[in-house]
Amino acid sequence: MMPESPIRKLVPYAEKAKKEGAKVIHLNIGQPDIKTPQIALDAVKNNTLSVLEYSRTEGSEVYREKLAEYYAKNDIHITAQDIIVTTGGSEALSFTMGSIADTDDEIIIPEPFYANYNGFATAMGIKVVPVVSQIVDNFALPPIEEFEKLITPKTRAILICNPGNPTGYLYSKDEIQKLAVIVKKHNLFLVADEVYREFTYDGKEHYSILQENGLDQHAIIVDSVSKRYSMCGARIGCLVSRNKEIIKTALKFAQARLSPPTYAQIASEAALETPQSYFDDVKEEYVERRNILMAELEKIEGIKIGRPQGAFYCIAELPIENSDDFAQWLLEEFRVNGETVMVAPASGFYASQGLGKNQIRIAYVLDKESLKRAVTILGEALKTYKG
Amino acid sequence: MMPESPIRKLVPYAEKAKKEGAKVIHLNIGQPDIKTPQIALDAVKNNTLSVLEYSRTEGSEVYREKLAEYYAKNDIHITAQDIIVTTGGSEALSFTMGSIADTDDEIIIPEPFYANYNGFATAMGIKVVPVVSQIVDNFALPPIEEFEKLITPKTRAILICNPGNPTGYLYSKDEIQKLAVIVKKHNLFLVADEVYREFTYDGKEHYSILQENGLDQHAIIVDSVSKRYSMCGARIGCLVSRNKEIIKTALKFAQARLSPPTYAQIASEAALETPQSYFDDVKEEYVERRNILMAELEKIEGIKIGRPQGAFYCIAELPIENSDDFAQWLLEEFRVNGETVMVAPASGFYASQGLGKNQIRIAYVLDKESLKRAVTILGEALKTYKG
Repeated sequence: MMPESPIRKLVPYAEKAKKEGAKVIHLNIGQPDIKTPQIALDAVKNNTLSVLEYSRTEGSEVYREKLAEYYAKNDIHITAQDIIVTTGGSEALSFTMGSIADTDDEIIIPEPFYANYNGFATAMGIKVVPVVSQIVDNFALPPIEEFEKLITPKTRAILICNPGNPTGYLYSKDEIQKLAVIVKKHNLFLVADEVYREFTYDGKEHYSILQENGLDQHAIIVDSVSKRYSMCGARIGCLVSRNKEIIKTALKFAQARLSPPTYAQIASEAALETPQSYFDDVKEEYVERRNILMAELEKIEGIKIGRPQGAFYCIAELPIENSDDFAQWLLEEFRVNGETVMVAPASGFYASQGLGKNQIRIAYVLDKESLKRAVTILGEALKTYKG
Repeated sequence: MMPESPIRKLVPYAEKAKKEGAKVIHLNIGQPDIKTPQIALDAVKNNTLSVLEYSRTEGSEVYREKLAEYYAKNDIHITAQDIIVTTGGSEALSFTMGSIADTDDEIIIPEPFYANYNGFATAMGIKVVPVVSQIVDNFALPPIEEFEKLITPKTRAILICNPGNPTGYLYSKDEIQKLAVIVKKHNLFLVADEVYREFTYDGKEHYSILQENGLDQHAIIVDSVSKRYSMCGARIGCLVSRNKEIIKTALKFAQARLSPPTYAQIASEAALETPQSYFDDVKEEYVERRNILMAELEKIEGIKIGRPQGAFYCIAELPIENSDDFAQWLLEEFRVNGETVMVAPASGFYASQGLGKNQIRIAYVLDKESLKRAVTILGEALKTYKG
């Protein structure tokens, strides 16, 4: 059975609230408001195609060559042959799972994790085995012994998201190296969803699993242009691995769906020329938003926060029992000057039954003023909701 | 194990031939040379997006409303709520399979069939059960008793492609009604890949499974803009069903991959305004190509041809033993004035071991002169190959 998205269940309530005239501030979605680089938008506007043909199954040759250069700039040294261009990071994930696991095989994932990992695994009959990370540690890597305990003959991989959605946690080089040891010891794959690579704060640097030596046969990264260039609607991502067998198998999945979208590859190729100043500005904006969000959240009594060092999410633990009910109540009943807030209940980010029930995920992808107002509303709501 | 595409195996030989200076005429591919409607190309060039956002998971509201109007014009009466916009017909197929079948369930498909049906089924652990159609009947629907024999408690659906890739066969209303009877009797789904709906010849009309009464709970169609508007690179298709449960389940698969590509939806929505004259011209072109192809093929001694009434493919049975070897030999060794031909061996379109070994699929998606020359080369090649 395919799981239903936890946010999706709330959509009808949000729509009703809007129909009734309420303004809903969305803390729940990962769609950045940041402008797409003009160079990418222009490339599509200026395209000269007369037949909108299939591209190559693995993505256009030129785009993959340029992607390899992008990775080299990030100290990730691979070739165009190590890349399969996919329809979003989503497809890279689904190809990865299909290539490394058969029905009933297991993949260990630190929870809370991006809910769709479960969706793709379920669609393929693969079992997600969660290992719990803790809000008090900002969702750092769980002790490596906890992973060890969960490894069975059916375990095929450990999957991480770095920096993390929904946690905002950035794994350190030391943590990546601990994972490297364990995947080599047990001959597992190490899959890293690195779509938020550029979004690291407080002077911290991202350390990719493909920067770690000795992982050539183990490491697979899932990547995407969606967040990097605020191009979520392009639906372009990629799978990168130095393991030739993985690339060969993933290519068979790619062949079945023929090719990634052509227009979006034009945009994505052009986006690689985005000037550094764009990223500097975007990062500065996100840091400010995060700081405002943290400062405002800390004013709320009884709240616990996982402090994010990357991406643009954080998990907050609220002094309530059930965030599904609370999120629904916000949309159905609570208003401050005609406004309310939509949050993502965190239970959907956990595979372990019962965990995360008093947590929510907040995405800080909206302007600072709205963000500040949203947290104020959240604080007021908690006062009312509690008593 | 994901199967490898039969054409794909030949690609290195084609590349080698080209490197050696040979001109390769492609009879093997389904990428039409027809121009994409200008109105669709212009819509993308004139788009005014500044943030390339996710679209709705099920596709944009406006596009689905307009799609419903397109279907109404084709005497298929459905609503926007019966449609999920997908990333190509490929994804519509994969969502359909995931929604109707679990691991080890069975889907009956007349063979030869589009090779990727097998790819998607394999990826999901679903078993394809073939029922043989014959070249002497132009690949008409096999006797309904043959289907009956194959139905087990694990059978979930019958899947047809109408008009057919790779056969070019157009199922009659009578044949669709026979299928309707059997799916109702055994409570199965009837899935029709109708991506070639517009391409019907000799005055014959397409009869959709959604035009047949009483199939609301059974019928699911898989559709795509790829061939209709020569927009293969857009990667936009859709799944259509009046069965609410199917739509609800398919939507969960859709949520996992977030949204279909935004630019391509702009093109696809605009393409719906393509004037009828475009289709008339395209159809006329294909009929002429088909007639030339048939006339030229009939000159070849010992050949059998399935006469196509739709789509732009036909299967030819050659006086040889193994078309995989023959196709490879064409690329490696045979030249006429520096030219050779690439054909698709038909064995990949059969699930039954050993069938189709002396057959090839020819796609008539290239200009008439090249088509004529290609068949002449094929004829010459067969003379040489035989002796």
